[in-house]
Amino acid sequence: MTAAPLVAIVMGSQSDWPTMQRAAEMLDRLEVAYEARIVSAHRTPDRLVEFAKTAAGNGFKVVIAGAGGAAHLPGMIASMTHVPVLGVPVQSKALSGQDSLLSIVQMPAGIPVGTLAIGEAGAANAGLLAAAILATGDDALAERLKAFRAEQTASVAEKPA
Amino acid sequence: MTAAPLVAIVMGSQSDWPTMQRAAEMLDRLEVAYEARIVSAHRTPDRLVEFAKTAAGNGFKVVIAGAGGAAHLPGMIASMTHVPVLGVPVQSKALSGQDSLLSIVQMPAGIPVGTLAIGEAGAANAGLLAAAILATGDDALAERLKAFRAEQTASVAEKPA
Amino acid sequence: MTAAPLVAIVMGSQSDWPTMQRAAEMLDRLEVAYEARIVSAHRTPDRLVEFAKTAAGNGFKVVIAGAGGAAHLPGMIASMTHVPVLGVPVQSKALSGQDSLLSIVQMPAGIPVGTLAIGEAGAANAGLLAAAILATGDDALAERLKAFRAEQTASVAEKPA
Amino acid sequence: MTAAPLVAIVMGSQSDWPTMQRAAEMLDRLEVAYEARIVSAHRTPDRLVEFAKTAAGNGFKVVIAGAGGAAHLPGMIASMTHVPVLGVPVQSKALSGQDSLLSIVQMPAGIPVGTLAIGEAGAANAGLLAAAILATGDDALAERLKAFRAEQTASVAEKPA
Amino acid sequence: MTAAPLVAIVMGSQSDWPTMQRAAEMLDRLEVAYEARIVSAHRTPDRLVEFAKTAAGNGFKVVIAGAGGAAHLPGMIASMTHVPVLGVPVQSKALSGQDSLLSIVQMPAGIPVGTLAIGEAGAANAGLLAAAILATGDDALAERLKAFRAEQTASVAEKPA
Amino acid sequence: MTAAPLVAIVMGSQSDWPTMQRAAEMLDRLEVAYEARIVSAHRTPDRLVEFAKTAAGNGFKVVIAGAGGAAHLPGMIASMTHVPVLGVPVQSKALSGQDSLLSIVQMPAGIPVGTLAIGEAGAANAGLLAAAILATGDDALAERLKAFRAEQTASVAEKPA
Amino acid sequence: MTAAPLVAIVMGSQSDWPTMQRAAEMLDRLEVAYEARIVSAHRTPDRLVEFAKTAAGNGFKVVIAGAGGAAHLPGMIASMTHVPVLGVPVQSKALSGQDSLLSIVQMPAGIPVGTLAIGEAGAANAGLLAAAILATGDDALAERLKAFRAEQTASVAEKPA
Amino acid sequence: MTAAPLVAIVMGSQSDWPTMQRAAEMLDRLEVAYEARIVSAHRTPDRLVEFAKTAAGNGFKVVIAGAGGAAHLPGMIASMTHVPVLGVPVQSKALSGQDSLLSIVQMPAGIPVGTLAIGEAGAANAGLLAAAILATGDDALAERLKAFRAEQTASVAEKPA
Repeated sequence: MTAAPLVAIVMGSQSDWPTMQRAAEMLDRLEVAYEARIVSAHRTPDRLVEFAKTAAGNGFKVVIAGAGGAAHLPGMIASMTHVPVLGVPVQSKALSGQDSLLSIVQMPAGIPVGTLAIGEAGAANAGLLAAAILATGDDALAERLKAFRAEQTASVAEKPA
Repeated sequence: MTAAPLVAIVMGSQSDWPTMQRAAEMLDRLEVAYEARIVSAHRTPDRLVEFAKTAAGNGFKVVIAGAGGAAHLPGMIASMTHVPVLGVPVQSKALSGQDSLLSIVQMPAGIPVGTLAIGEAGAANAGLLAAAILATGDDALAERLKAFRAEQTASVAEKPA
Repeated sequence: MTAAPLVAIVMGSQSDWPTMQRAAEMLDRLEVAYEARIVSAHRTPDRLVEFAKTAAGNGFKVVIAGAGGAAHLPGMIASMTHVPVLGVPVQSKALSGQDSLLSIVQMPAGIPVGTLAIGEAGAANAGLLAAAILATGDDALAERLKAFRAEQTASVAEKPA
Repeated sequence: MTAAPLVAIVMGSQSDWPTMQRAAEMLDRLEVAYEARIVSAHRTPDRLVEFAKTAAGNGFKVVIAGAGGAAHLPGMIASMTHVPVLGVPVQSKALSGQDSLLSIVQMPAGIPVGTLAIGEAGAANAGLLAAAILATGDDALAERLKAFRAEQTASVAEKPA
Repeated sequence: MTAAPLVAIVMGSQSDWPTMQRAAEMLDRLEVAYEARIVSAHRTPDRLVEFAKTAAGNGFKVVIAGAGGAAHLPGMIASMTHVPVLGVPVQSKALSGQDSLLSIVQMPAGIPVGTLAIGEAGAANAGLLAAAILATGDDALAERLKAFRAEQTASVAEKPA
Repeated sequence: MTAAPLVAIVMGSQSDWPTMQRAAEMLDRLEVAYEARIVSAHRTPDRLVEFAKTAAGNGFKVVIAGAGGAAHLPGMIASMTHVPVLGVPVQSKALSGQDSLLSIVQMPAGIPVGTLAIGEAGAANAGLLAAAILATGDDALAERLKAFRAEQTASVAEKPA
Repeated sequence: MTAAPLVAIVMGSQSDWPTMQRAAEMLDRLEVAYEARIVSAHRTPDRLVEFAKTAAGNGFKVVIAGAGGAAHLPGMIASMTHVPVLGVPVQSKALSGQDSLLSIVQMPAGIPVGTLAIGEAGAANAGLLAAAILATGDDALAERLKAFRAEQTASVAEKPA
Repeated sequence: MTAAPLVAIVMGSQSDWPTMQRAAEMLDRLEVAYEARIVSAHRTPDRLVEFAKTAAGNGFKVVIAGAGGAAHLPGMIASMTHVPVLGVPVQSKALSGQDSLLSIVQMPAGIPVGTLAIGEAGAANAGLLAAAILATGDDALAERLKAFRAEQTASVAEKPA
């Protein structure tokens, strides 16, 4: 995409990409420019700070952050920016993402993370919600979003086969 | 407030108000106009449909929906509007909001609900996140949000007492 | 079947059919006429409203509804009809149906959903319970049900092999 | 009530009555005759067998069974009658009814129990669902049920106070 | 074995045998006579009653009962005999035996079931505990048990390989 | 009691006594001699070893062990004696005894602990099960146990009040 | 204390102090110099970075960090120092510290947090473990620790009262 | 390694080695001498006592203990030594390590176990934390640890691929 990215998709490690790719695909489909980066809260804390503090200045309007296990990435980004942060709990090995979900959603009052479902459905929905947020100020995007939703509705068969 | 409300705060029943009031207080503080309504997905399904389908046309830019137990309100509103929906799991009696949380956050791909923490912290954060969403297109609100955050940071004591 | 269907089997998506088919098989065996439809609470909310509001008028005496994750279908149908609704929690990927179960069973006072077990056993039992409900006013069906139960009892071996 | 009872409300112990009373109140309101009994699966197994085997012959059309902890009452009744059985998980002390819920809802294929929510909401809904089941063959009751539902809808305030 | 069986191993269905076989193997190894039967609490309630009420008279000194899901077999046997009952939670499909465990262990005061671990380890240990119970009155068995334990201790390698 | 104690009731700390007292009361009622001791697996490991290794020699036929949280007492006693060990999960503060239950019941193959319910019901049942174990070789105790059970059955009221 | 503090006790908010005070009391008792600070990962991220990056240089040998809910403080400190970090999950309102525990303990490979029990017991033990760590290089402290442990053992009564 | 081992890696059984090997690999990488042993709390209690009581005298500065299910090994070692004990919850079959985690982390006040994540990540981190503990008194090791951390940071790619 050549437009300046409005959405940042960040994830804790390369292994989160198969999940987070669903967010990217959704943004592609809705023609929303984004950038995907690896930012590990634990292994690259400086990169985390740098990313979060410059997110607004770099023109990002929404940040989508995915992580698994003791998933601190979404909340820590949210602590350093006033840009809306959406969190995607990546399914973890032993606890199937229950740890990821609670680590992301149970934020204390003062620093919100809008959390989506565990795994790929959550990542796709993070893309959709980011688009819906941008659409509050972009009528053309709102139309594309409505068209997507109408198409989605139309694609549901009447009877199981 | 005299401005047209940009945020709707809806809840499943009167008993959710002590929780959801925290969202209202946050929006008051950030000078964001809102409207609070009771819409029960289960007891007033027609009101639900009517509310959700007219939310965009009525000028709402964000919907905050709180409910407890088998909490269907946020997801059902999201199914009938492209306006961003934020969900607040109200703490339930037997299961302490674990049922509310899973009923709200585990949405299937295609219909997102940005979910906050269980209970009052989640409600306050829904207010904050709604403001952050609106602030993507409102610089004055962005300044108020940043000021709130700075004040919050400053209010943290150095040492426990 | 040529008889007017007395039971509706509805499910949130095509992917629920391998589970919900067990309900259909049970109704086939007990010679109860049914109809199977896909009704997604989230992707086809209008279809949901239309289905639920006409269920009684269309002659359905029992509705069996299956869904997974944030499973809102059974409860939302129940909110719009006084026909008995039975809910089947479909096993979900990350949380194995714990989310489906809580989303279906934890309904607030006023709108009941009779919930069965997670997965295929629950679907089969939804078929059986629907038949038992119809049998309260159909002696021939009651006899078929008793015969099924007797046969089931007789099929249990005395010793493991 | 002087009419022959159509619904049996059974519970594992006296201590379940404050919960199960909600089912009785609902049936009273809908003018459905019922009978309430204590039947402990564990302390009075003979009474359990006698009750379950004679339930149909005694004219019961629906059985509502409530129990807590390792709650075997609903499933064991269901194993000995073809009358529809509705189960109410009573909130337990240590595990808040999670044990009650799983013990009741996770029945194997072949013997269904239609399970309601944990605690008083579930008990009230068991009464409502029993009425809905009876209403499949009783138009007057169906009218009362619809009236109750309409009244319930009307009682929901527009705004929180 | 030609000795009169002192231990009954009962299970809810044929599918529990791969698990419960571990109890049988342990009893074989300790030379304790046993009998294995299928008794389904839900599909064969009459067989359950008959088995439980005659267990003491038939010479059983310990009953081992295994079941999965809403596992009522161990508790219902315990309700109808004063012979010690040991319960084995069989691993279930959706909930991995968490339902089985809670359904068996959370018995109300008055009717105990000595519960072992979920799955094969629990079944093996039920055999061992049954032997330990019989060994309170059988010195030769106590010696075999001690020898088994000593052998088990000796078989643990010093270092991983 | 003047008879040599056949049952040892051990607990991890004084704070477990209000729970474990229920085991003592049951044994008192059934006229089974017992001894109650505090043995902390963690704070008094030498006492643990000494107790467990001498339990058989000291004439104990059954050990009842109660502990909460990371409850290691029952399993560690079982590792050092072939006397049957019954475990009582004491209700813990944060996790309501879920930690206690899993720490006690999930023993590996080779070392069984017969586990009862969380809290006072479990303690009472440990007393009952200990008596049932002793009754396998004591006809008079078996009669007292049957009388207790009959009395218990008779004490269940027919109707709630 | 006048000695340079070797242990830092940090917590997310003033409300964590009643819990974390138990760590301070333990260090007082063992004569280990410490400093207690409030560092909120979410509300004061700069303070977090500053604290963590200077911890080693400021002479801290162990950091004890307590937080509740989506508890990111221990893990984020660990990401920015090689000083050993011990985490204390503070009991949270809705989920009783299950969220705190998973958010702290489930760290990815590469950044460890040694996690203690939920609540006050965990805080006290964090103090003890910090002392044990320091004692690996301080014989006098090792003696004090052993004396504490001996005293603790001696304080356990023989019998419940 | 020829240096006297400073770290003991103990595990409950051979089957824990694939997990615990990750601790060994980390210590190898950081050039910390260690020794790996199998010590089963349940099957070899004498070995447990002998190991724990001699750990300090044998020169171990840190003990890493891994076990699954009702995992008593770390806590029981901690009860008999003042050497810091780190616990690794091995992933269990039915409950995926939730039992292992709670059995290890929920220690009562007085006997700490520093607990790491479930499974291989936890084992690797136990090795790292042991090194960090030793590094409090070993500057060369501290440098190697910092180098490892720097290398780890550098290895994180900027973008997913």
